[in-house]
Amino acid sequence: MTGLATDVVVFTIRDQCLRVLLVRRSGEPFAGRWALPGGMVPADEALDDCANRMLGEKTGVRGVYLEQLYSFGAPRRDPRGRVVSVSYYALVPPERIAPFADGDDQLAWMPAGALPELAFDHRDIVELAHRRLAAKLDYSNIALQFMGERFTLSELQSVYETILGEPLDKRNFRKRVRNLPCIEDTGEWFRAGKHRPARLFRVTRSDRVEIIK
Amino acid sequence: MTGLATDVVVFTIRDQCLRVLLVRRSGEPFAGRWALPGGMVPADEALDDCANRMLGEKTGVRGVYLEQLYSFGAPRRDPRGRVVSVSYYALVPPERIAPFADGDDQLAWMPAGALPELAFDHRDIVELAHRRLAAKLDYSNIALQFMGERFTLSELQSVYETILGEPLDKRNFRKRVRNLPCIEDTGEWFRAGKHRPARLFRVTRSDRVEIIK
Repeated sequence: MTGLATDVVVFTIRDQCLRVLLVRRSGEPFAGRWALPGGMVPADEALDDCANRMLGEKTGVRGVYLEQLYSFGAPRRDPRGRVVSVSYYALVPPERIAPFADGDDQLAWMPAGALPELAFDHRDIVELAHRRLAAKLDYSNIALQFMGERFTLSELQSVYETILGEPLDKRNFRKRVRNLPCIEDTGEWFRAGKHRPARLFRVTRSDRVEIIK
Repeated sequence: MTGLATDVVVFTIRDQCLRVLLVRRSGEPFAGRWALPGGMVPADEALDDCANRMLGEKTGVRGVYLEQLYSFGAPRRDPRGRVVSVSYYALVPPERIAPFADGDDQLAWMPAGALPELAFDHRDIVELAHRRLAAKLDYSNIALQFMGERFTLSELQSVYETILGEPLDKRNFRKRVRNLPCIEDTGEWFRAGKHRPARLFRVTRSDRVEIIK
């Protein structure tokens, strides 16, 4: 018999920084250490429902992109006995999150690239989620999950660069996203100061992550 | 507390048919029904090790491509109580499998597209594995896992078509595989009867499944 947990890597992007939601553990093991939001799965709850519920309880956000990531089951990953973690990752657009309370020492959105020491194998889970997300940029429209109602292609490019951790060539990027599913030109323009106006786009089906053919 | 199982979808291709290894269940529940090879995970065994071991025990094959697929955890998927199945899929080149004993009524390689009624939610597991495999053809060199030591591009195309269940245009296919990682021209030719000779290729790194950039 085995303990069954789910842990959720909740990503958002703020100030061109990919951030992960962490909660401080109050109990043993790893009391005081930062960890992913998660917990034991009740016997009568489906895995997806449990992950969705935990996401909602910690962030107040529902209906965002959530995908099962991987099951971590090394026999000694939990010092209390065998616990398998079915991990998930979720993508939350920044404007759906309540203003960050940066001084909160129980709940924090930390840069994915500069995490503190985490409980259990949660660092491995975050790293796998980051790799999965970065890989999916290449063959899907998953980045749209981070976009607001209207956005410019420069803003979209910034999301890609933030996840990949490297600058992209503007012209190649525009070629690449031209055929992205679920995106359309609004016909409107964004003007900021003396900059050239930029076309505004919107997501047509925000519930859909589609593979690029 | 929860029961923890792994189940493995073992694919091979024979006679242009994608086949899945099934075993007949001897005990309840679902006695007599066909099922995926799998079983409960011992408390001290890692998930990957367990899946690898089960694959080896049923097929005699080791060292082939094996990837964690998904964890199935609907509360009532097993009538005995909650059992979460961490499912895997494996790809076995046909020449590594012992000759099929088609009359065996305990172990059989059945066409993925024409499965009998399976135990538990194993049909869902097979269907998800098939979708994952088909999707990966688009953005990785995973099909090479089915190839023998030397092969022609027509044979490789046939593998794609078998997995996708549809014919592909020859010219587009050749364009697409030209940049496939881990494949090289042997400089040799295959001649069969009056057909035009065909170039023979080989896989350079059979342990690597790589994303196509």
